[in-house]
Amino acid sequence: MPTVPLKDRWFDDFSVGERFEFGAYTVTEDEIVDFARRYDPQPFHLDPDAARASHFGGLVASGWMTCSVLMRLLCDHFIPRVSSMGSPGVDEVRWLEPVRPGDVLRARSEILECRPSRSKPDRGVLRARHQLVNQHGAVVMTTLGMGMYRRRPAAEAD
Amino acid sequence: MPTVPLKDRWFDDFSVGERFEFGAYTVTEDEIVDFARRYDPQPFHLDPDAARASHFGGLVASGWMTCSVLMRLLCDHFIPRVSSMGSPGVDEVRWLEPVRPGDVLRARSEILECRPSRSKPDRGVLRARHQLVNQHGAVVMTTLGMGMYRRRPAAEAD
Repeated sequence: MPTVPLKDRWFDDFSVGERFEFGAYTVTEDEIVDFARRYDPQPFHLDPDAARASHFGGLVASGWMTCSVLMRLLCDHFIPRVSSMGSPGVDEVRWLEPVRPGDVLRARSEILECRPSRSKPDRGVLRARHQLVNQHGAVVMTTLGMGMYRRRPAAEAD
Repeated sequence: MPTVPLKDRWFDDFSVGERFEFGAYTVTEDEIVDFARRYDPQPFHLDPDAARASHFGGLVASGWMTCSVLMRLLCDHFIPRVSSMGSPGVDEVRWLEPVRPGDVLRARSEILECRPSRSKPDRGVLRARHQLVNQHGAVVMTTLGMGMYRRRPAAEAD
């Protein structure tokens, strides 16, 4: 199914197979080092010289920073358009390729499942595959996200 | 199995069922807001007033900040003692309870699987359940991590 434009949506407006692409986030060396200093102080995230001597051959972003960049792209482009009620978690976080200074990351999301809540009729659960793709077209990270979304209020039902 | 002390270890030194506890990380309001501003600018992570009016009833940390705190505890207490070669990803990230300013988080890890690599005889894969526990004893987050660890060099084999 081709990529579809984002627009304001309730849970009921999503369909399995829909795909979205959004955002562009440029990663800098300063950001990689700042994040590493606070949360992931391993040499290949923290120190350009040590990173050059590592098997990465240069500085790479913490995998948790890469997850956080995906979250930022979702916050900037996806969540404001949809009736998000938060997420209980994610599955299958995979760091597939190094993220390096200067990389420009875009997000791709595909809806895998739309399931109305049995216990709470005001909401439904969407499962989506999210990917971050770099400027060379390589998928650098993938996750399987779960999110709760508000259903269209009865007065607005079509 | 009771908690065991951490000590320097190769892949070969781990056993299924071993449990470790380590660290203490105090979360502050400033850190929650800083992280949110950069990566997860939703009102309940970013703005104490808006957070009070939300279903959380107050400021809560981004789930990705909570993941990053676990990473920091692993970097400070676990990874320096073990022959870590990095991680391809994690499964089953679950945010179970809100993380609030002033919370003190500790890590618990349990080894679930020890599998020597078939293709690369110098390493093995460990699967571990990691939890973050707050000062009230509540598990606030859990993940299923995979890590590659170097095997004991042949010259050192016992």
